[in-house]
Amino acid sequence: MIEKKQILDILQSYDQKKISIATVCSHSSLQIFDGARKEGFRTIGICVGEPPRFYDAFPKAKPDEYIIVDSYQQIPDIADKLREKNAIIVPHGSFVEYMGSDKFTDLAVPTFGNRNVLNWESDRDKEREWLEGAGIHMPRKIEDPRDINGPVMVKYHGARGGRGFFVAKSYEEFERYIEPHQKYTIQEFIIGTRYYLHYFYSPLRNEGYSLSEGTLEMLSMDRRVESNADEIFRLGSPKELTEAGIQPTYVVTGNVPLIARESLLPLVFSIGEKVVEQSIKMFGGMIGPFCLETVFTDKLEIKVFEISARIVAGTNIYMSGSPYSDLIEENLSTGRRIAQEIKLGQRLNQLDRIIS
Amino acid sequence: MIEKKQILDILQSYDQKKISIATVCSHSSLQIFDGARKEGFRTIGICVGEPPRFYDAFPKAKPDEYIIVDSYQQIPDIADKLREKNAIIVPHGSFVEYMGSDKFTDLAVPTFGNRNVLNWESDRDKEREWLEGAGIHMPRKIEDPRDINGPVMVKYHGARGGRGFFVAKSYEEFERYIEPHQKYTIQEFIIGTRYYLHYFYSPLRNEGYSLSEGTLEMLSMDRRVESNADEIFRLGSPKELTEAGIQPTYVVTGNVPLIARESLLPLVFSIGEKVVEQSIKMFGGMIGPFCLETVFTDKLEIKVFEISARIVAGTNIYMSGSPYSDLIEENLSTGRRIAQEIKLGQRLNQLDRIIS
Amino acid sequence: MIEKKQILDILQSYDQKKISIATVCSHSSLQIFDGARKEGFRTIGICVGEPPRFYDAFPKAKPDEYIIVDSYQQIPDIADKLREKNAIIVPHGSFVEYMGSDKFTDLAVPTFGNRNVLNWESDRDKEREWLEGAGIHMPRKIEDPRDINGPVMVKYHGARGGRGFFVAKSYEEFERYIEPHQKYTIQEFIIGTRYYLHYFYSPLRNEGYSLSEGTLEMLSMDRRVESNADEIFRLGSPKELTEAGIQPTYVVTGNVPLIARESLLPLVFSIGEKVVEQSIKMFGGMIGPFCLETVFTDKLEIKVFEISARIVAGTNIYMSGSPYSDLIEENLSTGRRIAQEIKLGQRLNQLDRIIS
Repeated sequence: MIEKKQILDILQSYDQKKISIATVCSHSSLQIFDGARKEGFRTIGICVGEPPRFYDAFPKAKPDEYIIVDSYQQIPDIADKLREKNAIIVPHGSFVEYMGSDKFTDLAVPTFGNRNVLNWESDRDKEREWLEGAGIHMPRKIEDPRDINGPVMVKYHGARGGRGFFVAKSYEEFERYIEPHQKYTIQEFIIGTRYYLHYFYSPLRNEGYSLSEGTLEMLSMDRRVESNADEIFRLGSPKELTEAGIQPTYVVTGNVPLIARESLLPLVFSIGEKVVEQSIKMFGGMIGPFCLETVFTDKLEIKVFEISARIVAGTNIYMSGSPYSDLIEENLSTGRRIAQEIKLGQRLNQLDRIIS
Repeated sequence: MIEKKQILDILQSYDQKKISIATVCSHSSLQIFDGARKEGFRTIGICVGEPPRFYDAFPKAKPDEYIIVDSYQQIPDIADKLREKNAIIVPHGSFVEYMGSDKFTDLAVPTFGNRNVLNWESDRDKEREWLEGAGIHMPRKIEDPRDINGPVMVKYHGARGGRGFFVAKSYEEFERYIEPHQKYTIQEFIIGTRYYLHYFYSPLRNEGYSLSEGTLEMLSMDRRVESNADEIFRLGSPKELTEAGIQPTYVVTGNVPLIARESLLPLVFSIGEKVVEQSIKMFGGMIGPFCLETVFTDKLEIKVFEISARIVAGTNIYMSGSPYSDLIEENLSTGRRIAQEIKLGQRLNQLDRIIS
Repeated sequence: MIEKKQILDILQSYDQKKISIATVCSHSSLQIFDGARKEGFRTIGICVGEPPRFYDAFPKAKPDEYIIVDSYQQIPDIADKLREKNAIIVPHGSFVEYMGSDKFTDLAVPTFGNRNVLNWESDRDKEREWLEGAGIHMPRKIEDPRDINGPVMVKYHGARGGRGFFVAKSYEEFERYIEPHQKYTIQEFIIGTRYYLHYFYSPLRNEGYSLSEGTLEMLSMDRRVESNADEIFRLGSPKELTEAGIQPTYVVTGNVPLIARESLLPLVFSIGEKVVEQSIKMFGGMIGPFCLETVFTDKLEIKVFEISARIVAGTNIYMSGSPYSDLIEENLSTGRRIAQEIKLGQRLNQLDRIIS
């Protein structure tokens, strides 16, 4: 992990009036570039080989320039170039996944957010320590697969877009589907409806929903579209399909918009608040966007099964605002909110507090 | 039920240039406050204990002031205060549920809409009399559970957010799940896709889709997200789950947006029209927003299984307009439409026609 | 099929400064009229009997005038009138279906798009020749129902809104459900999640995602709401229901919004591009909006099961823009995009290239 001091020295060398915003050309880059441009920043797209042609179809989100690498693992080689352009990196899930988390945490370019969070988020045990330490209700963890006595979800470690996850109702089913040589976690399967809650924690703002330091916003929510789990019921029940040799899968292909009952908003904010406060205590705090992946049960409880400590792709639905962010200001995407935070850091001369 | 005359006397005492809009801080209050402010009204949030902190995160929807009560049943005690502030109450489902319908209908504060409608809507027999009297197709009612000979939905009386509702396919299943000492209704289970249609009836406007008096609008539609019924298929079929002791439940946790085939709009308007016309005949008419809870069958018929005669939470998706309301004017939520109607009442000096 | 020369002669006779846009009052007409008006065109609604009253509720989308016919088959009788008004017809699925494709292709009124496409799209064999010729992955076709050895979807020829389609897993099931005397196609049932991708091909623009000629845009996506297939799982699995005599059906009642993973956009554009390029080779090219009806599998492949070579009703969700079109310009519906293309044709004096 690169030292904060080193990053601050780089920042010191920047022309802070000419900050540009850089990210990898995938995941939520359209939104990041569009938002950055709306706030007046120059944008840099990092890509492998040729720049993706699809940006040509979306002129508002096309980066001002591209930096091309042979592979995402080679991003460290362009650190110089990025620094020359006074770049702040906005990381997203694919950025970290493609580059590898070790290379990402070592990268000598100022990066929006706190890179320390990766240690807590990528290991499911530490993630649980963080969230349960915050008083969040999570699905029960089953340590020994022989203890499975009701529906469970089995997940592999690391971001794999849901590939290979499976539901089992007994040890026998577990044994049948588990891939060898993979680290996995077994969680109680929570019966309810899934909500992916998109928050934003600003350490710099002091108007709004106040925390011990800074403020919390909730910008939008989505539900992931999972292939083939979402539509497989058209063919048969999980049991019938399993008998026919067809396995439900949980690969994210996209997202649909949704909102929650207003009477659940106090709880939604309360769990977001606890997670941020705990992160401040444990590792100096998450910064910027994060997502709690939850199930709302029929008792109107919210169970959190995972956290993503950066912008998630579900925010892409809300390129021009959501029913929630519209109550903050018009045309506010999460990508734009990130750019606003960087701009606020510039204005307050506190960029050092929101990068690492 | 408070006399209309008494309400009109109160209205007479108001400074009608300084009307404020008040509601309980839940359900659709963000939208009601945001809409009221956009139309230039002062807003009052009624809450128990401390004002909810989540409003701080949504500055456009934060009420201008709060009136705090010990419990919602004590709202009658603040009637004086509300009248002093020239308040018109905008009721929503939680307002009525939390306060109790007797206290609500007695409340000596001018209230948007016709409070008489509660008598017709909260009793499922009278609701059926109203809707079938209007020529609307409803799911068949089964009087005697012994007559169940196909899928039925069993619902308890009163607004409970879907809690405890269940599907039964036989008398045996009915017997197994029914809660003792609860009034219930048994309806034929209509197979199709659910649409919640958000209408607005204006007795004051005379341009648009004209009724015998006033005009009808259709502002948006949603589908409710029900926990755990919506995602339980990932675990098993209803039969398999019932055998495993897992009961599907129908608790509303939120809403997703949707639209209908354009070729169904004539029917959508026609059923809305019939319901309004019948309400005018039966009890002087609903006023303002109402929702028909429907199923669209594969024969492209619309079956109405319930009516809500005020703003429903599904409209919260459309804080800044819907695909339909965008064809009326930009940025038109149902909350804002209510505020527009009150403003029109002021301008025409006909507030008396839209309050009770 | 009317000769292109004849259409060009009619166009020659038009006052090209006073073009009006006409369509049948159904399907996506609200969006077409709203978009046309936003671009400054006069609008004409063609309807049977009385003009539909629902337009009165949507003032921005109400056509400037109506032309009334006794039946849609009689549209040829009003060709004179349409030509007098310098009308360009914007066809949609119901336009073609109601009028009949023979009458539609013979109609002596300039029509947006290339009417030749109908030959390729309405016959499932020629459709497959087109799409597979373009290198698109389609569900495997089963020629002989006796060869069914896994889940298949059986579809009837012609646009019928999904009515009568059924899933079968064996020859026995096929035999049980097939309607006599109907042309049908048997396709492999692709397990995944459905995405309906809304493209726009402009032969006139030269900035953007460039093809051999013109540019490709992707304006939005939706998922169709199918009755009763989408919610029937609440009653039982397909097998359980079939045994109870309840048949899943696939009648489209509406649409929900959704978006795709950004990492799939290169593939989304690539398949759109191939389909357009192949159409140019085969019959001079589709023009304007088209929709690929797809399934995204859990291997993140996109299988195309059908094409609609004109505006589809799923675009109605995006009356005021989509997460994608917002990155092109604000408030851009597909209806409006069509009007922009006609306007561009006027300005470049190349209307002849986008009508037939």
